[in-house]
Amino acid sequence: MELIQRMLAGDKRACARLITTVESNPEEAEKILREIHPYTGRANILGITGPPGAGKSTLTDKIVKKFVDEGKKVGIIAVDPTSPYSGGSILGDRIRMQDLALHPNVFIRSMGTRGYLGGLSKHTKNALKILDAAGYDYIIIETVGVGQSEVDIVKTADSILMVMVPGLGDDIQSIKAGIMEIGDIFVINKSDLFGADRTATEVNMMLDLSSNMDRRPPVVKVTASKNEGIDTLKSEIINHLVYLNESGKLNERRKNNMRTEVVELIETELRKIVISSTASENKLESEISKIITKEKNIYEVRDEFLKAIREE
Amino acid sequence: MELIQRMLAGDKRACARLITTVESNPEEAEKILREIHPYTGRANILGITGPPGAGKSTLTDKIVKKFVDEGKKVGIIAVDPTSPYSGGSILGDRIRMQDLALHPNVFIRSMGTRGYLGGLSKHTKNALKILDAAGYDYIIIETVGVGQSEVDIVKTADSILMVMVPGLGDDIQSIKAGIMEIGDIFVINKSDLFGADRTATEVNMMLDLSSNMDRRPPVVKVTASKNEGIDTLKSEIINHLVYLNESGKLNERRKNNMRTEVVELIETELRKIVISSTASENKLESEISKIITKEKNIYEVRDEFLKAIREE
Repeated sequence: MELIQRMLAGDKRACARLITTVESNPEEAEKILREIHPYTGRANILGITGPPGAGKSTLTDKIVKKFVDEGKKVGIIAVDPTSPYSGGSILGDRIRMQDLALHPNVFIRSMGTRGYLGGLSKHTKNALKILDAAGYDYIIIETVGVGQSEVDIVKTADSILMVMVPGLGDDIQSIKAGIMEIGDIFVINKSDLFGADRTATEVNMMLDLSSNMDRRPPVVKVTASKNEGIDTLKSEIINHLVYLNESGKLNERRKNNMRTEVVELIETELRKIVISSTASENKLESEISKIITKEKNIYEVRDEFLKAIREE
Repeated sequence: MELIQRMLAGDKRACARLITTVESNPEEAEKILREIHPYTGRANILGITGPPGAGKSTLTDKIVKKFVDEGKKVGIIAVDPTSPYSGGSILGDRIRMQDLALHPNVFIRSMGTRGYLGGLSKHTKNALKILDAAGYDYIIIETVGVGQSEVDIVKTADSILMVMVPGLGDDIQSIKAGIMEIGDIFVINKSDLFGADRTATEVNMMLDLSSNMDRRPPVVKVTASKNEGIDTLKSEIINHLVYLNESGKLNERRKNNMRTEVVELIETELRKIVISSTASENKLESEISKIITKEKNIYEVRDEFLKAIREE
């Protein structure tokens, strides 16, 4: 496929078109993803998550600039209604980000929640694979850490940055445990604000109390808007990636993600079989009527369809 | 089963215990639901939804009192973190609601989001069936209309009340179309507040603009806290239920819900087959390794498992 060749050769527009194709055309998607599979698995994937207003986009901006200054290629997938990438924040931010998007070594893709309902996680993973094959050294997934689907998305990352801000104060207890647990590096952004030390102390205390940790995540104070602390943060990111590699955890994480993905793919196909099985000859319709007239119960109907699917 | 006999005889405690059993024990759940199936399908199911702070619980309270005064039995399933039933609101509300719960013809069950993740919709439907079999004339499902899962839950209802409040103002445009579309009756609560007429006008305009409507939903202004407009609202509820019955829409809705439920049940069973198939002899593990070493791609692995499942 010519588009894939161009993408592999570093063509940003080909990359964008492939992502769009994969999003909109399931059959083409499978062909493309089969073909690019040998080129994947090389990028370092960073997840940046945290509540709205934590300054994730500004932080992403500064981190990306550090990597780009070293000659690295960086892809950004923004899955965040409040992100300037996906069009939620103030105009100034948005203009600044578009500036970054013009850099030849930076690729930005925003994924709104609109139109992706239920499938956002799949689309994010697919876009990630394309950017990976396209040779981006780092791929950043930026998402608001609020819902389960966002957590699922950010879990695709090798290294997860949990961004917090001072003033979260007493609310820190209320942050869902499941979300805190996925953080590999805790970033206190806007550290020039009053209360930054207290927030850092609280996060540190919470991390000290957590058991079952092979590695105690670091807490890094930064002020992204002033470009302060970004070097330290970058070192911690690199440290974590080295740790993942040397401990075998990277392989473990990627295997876990792959396992989830395979199971999801199998389920998707089985769902298609269910749909085609129940759709045939209005069989489902007549069975539903029998449930309503109490001739059969819902479990009897289920079992009949299961039998039919397996015998098909 | 003795517990079922007691539930059918009107024992509230037996009803509560059956719901708990169905929630916590999947095998028992299927037995119970098979057995009560012949007794279901008689209740009128009302869904009450709307944003947090719209006063859904107070409204529910007043509607329930109207029905109870007529000698009807009313079951309430509260799936709402902000509801006093499920323990989210101010103390005064909660005490008032407990008062209602003591009435012999009222049964209240709250379903928090905690511990139900992913399965809340299923548990709500099961509780609904038990209350239906127990002979409740009306079953009210109260839920915050924010996420997709809440929308799925409220869609189980025969008649859906969409509760709004003045001051929503310009935000009305931002309410997700999918949520507005499911409303059968629009309720402007807190109509004594400034802006109630404007909100009603806006909702009316929006409804006038919507096409593809067999029936134009009414807009009813109430002030639940002062018990104002509840009679009119009750008439509109009855009107809608009569309309559903006479037009054949009730049967259609219930068939649609049943269809969704059968397909979900089949999928759940297939998912179990996938899990047992992939879990066997670490087959998935070795296949995942092959994906990572690029020996195979994810789609090849999927297809092999699908083949194995069908041949099993």
